[in-house]
Amino acid sequence: MRKVAVVGAGQTEFSGPQPRTNLELFSEAAKEALAVASVNTRDIQALLVGNALSDFEEGQQIAHSYIAENLGLPHVPANIYDGACAASSVAIRDAFIWIASGLYDVILVGGMERVATMGTKMATETYAMYCDRYYEYPSGITFPGIFAMIAHLYANKYGYTIDELKEQMALVSVKAHRYGILNPKAHLRRPMTVEKVFRSPMVCEPLQVYDCCPFSDGGAAVVLASEEYAKKLTDKPVFITGIGQASAGSLASQQENLPHLIARQIAAKQAYAMAGITPRDVDVCEVHDSFSIAEIIAIESLGFFDYGTGGKATAKGETMIGGKIAVNPSGGLKAKGHPVGATGAAQVYEIFRQLRGECGESQVEGARTGLTDTMGSSGGIQVNMILERGW
Amino acid sequence: MRKVAVVGAGQTEFSGPQPRTNLELFSEAAKEALAVASVNTRDIQALLVGNALSDFEEGQQIAHSYIAENLGLPHVPANIYDGACAASSVAIRDAFIWIASGLYDVILVGGMERVATMGTKMATETYAMYCDRYYEYPSGITFPGIFAMIAHLYANKYGYTIDELKEQMALVSVKAHRYGILNPKAHLRRPMTVEKVFRSPMVCEPLQVYDCCPFSDGGAAVVLASEEYAKKLTDKPVFITGIGQASAGSLASQQENLPHLIARQIAAKQAYAMAGITPRDVDVCEVHDSFSIAEIIAIESLGFFDYGTGGKATAKGETMIGGKIAVNPSGGLKAKGHPVGATGAAQVYEIFRQLRGECGESQVEGARTGLTDTMGSSGGIQVNMILERGW
Repeated sequence: MRKVAVVGAGQTEFSGPQPRTNLELFSEAAKEALAVASVNTRDIQALLVGNALSDFEEGQQIAHSYIAENLGLPHVPANIYDGACAASSVAIRDAFIWIASGLYDVILVGGMERVATMGTKMATETYAMYCDRYYEYPSGITFPGIFAMIAHLYANKYGYTIDELKEQMALVSVKAHRYGILNPKAHLRRPMTVEKVFRSPMVCEPLQVYDCCPFSDGGAAVVLASEEYAKKLTDKPVFITGIGQASAGSLASQQENLPHLIARQIAAKQAYAMAGITPRDVDVCEVHDSFSIAEIIAIESLGFFDYGTGGKATAKGETMIGGKIAVNPSGGLKAKGHPVGATGAAQVYEIFRQLRGECGESQVEGARTGLTDTMGSSGGIQVNMILERGW
Repeated sequence: MRKVAVVGAGQTEFSGPQPRTNLELFSEAAKEALAVASVNTRDIQALLVGNALSDFEEGQQIAHSYIAENLGLPHVPANIYDGACAASSVAIRDAFIWIASGLYDVILVGGMERVATMGTKMATETYAMYCDRYYEYPSGITFPGIFAMIAHLYANKYGYTIDELKEQMALVSVKAHRYGILNPKAHLRRPMTVEKVFRSPMVCEPLQVYDCCPFSDGGAAVVLASEEYAKKLTDKPVFITGIGQASAGSLASQQENLPHLIARQIAAKQAYAMAGITPRDVDVCEVHDSFSIAEIIAIESLGFFDYGTGGKATAKGETMIGGKIAVNPSGGLKAKGHPVGATGAAQVYEIFRQLRGECGESQVEGARTGLTDTMGSSGGIQVNMILERGW
């Protein structure tokens, strides 16, 4: 197996409803990634695109083929991946394997989504289909409900009152917005306070509006290359040194592990083992904070904090830049935004730039090793990646 | 890169509307494939599923994760691929790469669809989204219209009257039904005549109902393994020796090559080159006869007949078992049926059994080399595979 590097990354501004098509959003991010990588479109050998619902939202089922044509990647193999919120991480992992296999040298991969444009009603109805259709959905269980139940389980299991946990969760959002303000491409660039979270409308007890990430439009893309190809392009390649993916079934089948998610535990373990590192070696990470409680369980499952202590660590500032581990310096899904198909690629965009020291005010000084964490469905699909400086 | 073998294959009966869920259809095919391969579910390392529209049809977006759980493949990486009508061929090609890379030894891969269950109205509306959403679809161009235009172009370019071409096309359907009757898993098991085709309702001049494949329900699955792993399981492995995939944009961008499809020309060339064979070496093939004219252009692009002579060759019986090249001895999409996400895997199921001499009355005697041809959209996604006996 060959080594695989990220040699370029691009991202559109994440936003509310906007007029660009899915093809245009992806292309904008791709052009930035190609420019950073100094790769011409004619040299790209394959196009892998993550997207969840361009069919329902835009009435277009094969955006990827048209993207290939419009970007000038004529007739390359083009795939589309629906891995729920992990769609573009699934696509990036596949591109990794294609290059590792020796079949491909350089691939454009990313994702896009127009969740804001599709409107709250359609988004709520269609994203609910990433729950179990036969048992969970008919019971009225959708994602805010699932993560609200996870929050209650967490408080109960680790001996917090719900008010104590609510404050810890609110501090996750406060941190996210603090960094979102610094990110020129973030969707929500305004300050947040614990009081604001508590005053926001209740979504599903104990989760309030500001415990939840927004629905966003946006695109993100990266260029992956073999080690040999990467060395011709740049003296600052970022290698994907570890990668893991796992699946899980309905929530009922996951009971033994809740409030933590079994697929993350497995995928993270795979990624660490492949990279030959431990959580202590990670300087910066982008985790899947679709809800504030989701960040708390993520940073515990990833091995940064003991189970039951992630919220406390957040309250102590240990997840800030300069703390024990910098978590979501991009603003995360909560403040940067969550254009579903673009989210995983946007995590890699942030880590790529962090490791290259290009993040300005939200730079994690001297970061050498980063991690991405993308969760689809209620842990039904999980991808983790370890990225390391190649110089 | 390691060699990759098919070691087992399974298929449900293809049919009209039926009560099994997508999960159940896939699982039925998978169990047959696993039994043929003598592989236990606990040994399967990944699950790749092709499916186009379980979201619209069943309200389930991540059937693949639930399939993994229900089949007892706990927590393996599970992906879903929407490559339009080529969905499961895209999935199989990906499984091929995963194994070739050295990362995986044995993978369950296939697809399923309930196109009949979804009903003609929803199927017509949703499958139209595999055309270009911004230019083709608003012009009223859907697949019967596209292939009707291709038929007119074909007749015009190669100097046939439309009545001459209609007779050639009808004979494609007659052949398909002749073999469909022999296939116990075919959707349409009744005889067809040229007269019946001509008496059937007009869909889009010159295509009549019996020029078109049915909407079907069904599932198909195969087990792929590395050469080393395959040798432990069977003394009759079928190797995938060549594989190609290409994409194309809207029809307007393909004008120069029409009535043939550029993505097929490229993908077939890749597959032949990888296998190191020529069209003359192929004994049996399963091609994408979604419309009768589609088979004619396919067998020309695949190099079995000169351009403009595929229909004439069909009329002379050269595509029958015992002719120059056996085309669609399973009955093809036309008679076996077309459960979109299952179609590519069902082609591999047929070729696998042909090469192992298990096809009874429709056996191509002594077949050593087979080819599959799966087209998604109007040539927007194309996958070709060469399979050869490993003994």
